[in-house]
Amino acid sequence: MIILGLDPSLSSCGWGIVRAEGNRLAHVANGQIKTKASLPLATRLAELAGALEAIVAEHRPAAAAAEEVFVNKNPASTLKLAQARGVALMCAARGGLEVGEYAPSVVKKAVVGTGGASKDQVHAMVAMLLPGAKIAGEDAADALAVAITHAHHLASARRGVR
Amino acid sequence: MIILGLDPSLSSCGWGIVRAEGNRLAHVANGQIKTKASLPLATRLAELAGALEAIVAEHRPAAAAAEEVFVNKNPASTLKLAQARGVALMCAARGGLEVGEYAPSVVKKAVVGTGGASKDQVHAMVAMLLPGAKIAGEDAADALAVAITHAHHLASARRGVR
Repeated sequence: MIILGLDPSLSSCGWGIVRAEGNRLAHVANGQIKTKASLPLATRLAELAGALEAIVAEHRPAAAAAEEVFVNKNPASTLKLAQARGVALMCAARGGLEVGEYAPSVVKKAVVGTGGASKDQVHAMVAMLLPGAKIAGEDAADALAVAITHAHHLASARRGVR
Repeated sequence: MIILGLDPSLSSCGWGIVRAEGNRLAHVANGQIKTKASLPLATRLAELAGALEAIVAEHRPAAAAAEEVFVNKNPASTLKLAQARGVALMCAARGGLEVGEYAPSVVKKAVVGTGGASKDQVHAMVAMLLPGAKIAGEDAADALAVAITHAHHLASARRGVR
């Protein structure tokens, strides 16, 4: 099963694709979609949509997952992120995908073992779980972590363990 | 010039289209796109995109405008709204439209004359400015108000008055 993980953002949207077979995981692809801050918001969102649609069309995932979003100390950046996330989820749904949603702490716990893990720990563990993967950056690592979390969740669900 | 106004929301996205010629305004169409709260978020966003794309394709506006979004007392509903707004802006950009963005107080001031106007006042004034328009509801009235604001702004810009 091909799983698409998304770490939505307007400036650098992480995406990562893994293949899950039972408990085995393999890296397929990952990247970061960047849009220029100098462009109008609507244009940036349209560029993000185009890039994500191309990724879905190329890799034809069977499931998708994205980190949940919360209002943090910077409301303006949260709102930009939420707008990018709306576009990302829409692209997944249009690709026929159901989208699992996971809180960042759940992703960290699934990948590193503790909900308070640092970005570096997540990146290092993703690299370990997906040997040979060349990871495009922190956002791509986060996206792969979400895909891995969803793979675990789906495997547990199939075994009836939640 | 055909102008599309948007009042983005996940549960009821208002849209309104006016024709502006110089200082004259005429109503073209308006409505509210509703998606079921029982559906997954990504599905609702995809439905919203499909409906907005159909409206853009049918009416072929030359410009668009949307209310700005702010984090209010209900962060969860703000985040839903922001995700819907991202999809709405993306649809406009894909339709080749630049999107003007206006704070709610600016829209109220442009339409009613005071930034603190109530929803009812906005609705009543929109109905007065667009005689004969059958307004689908509060969200459609807000969207028409945004379109009217954008029409005023574009007309002022053409006259060199800002």
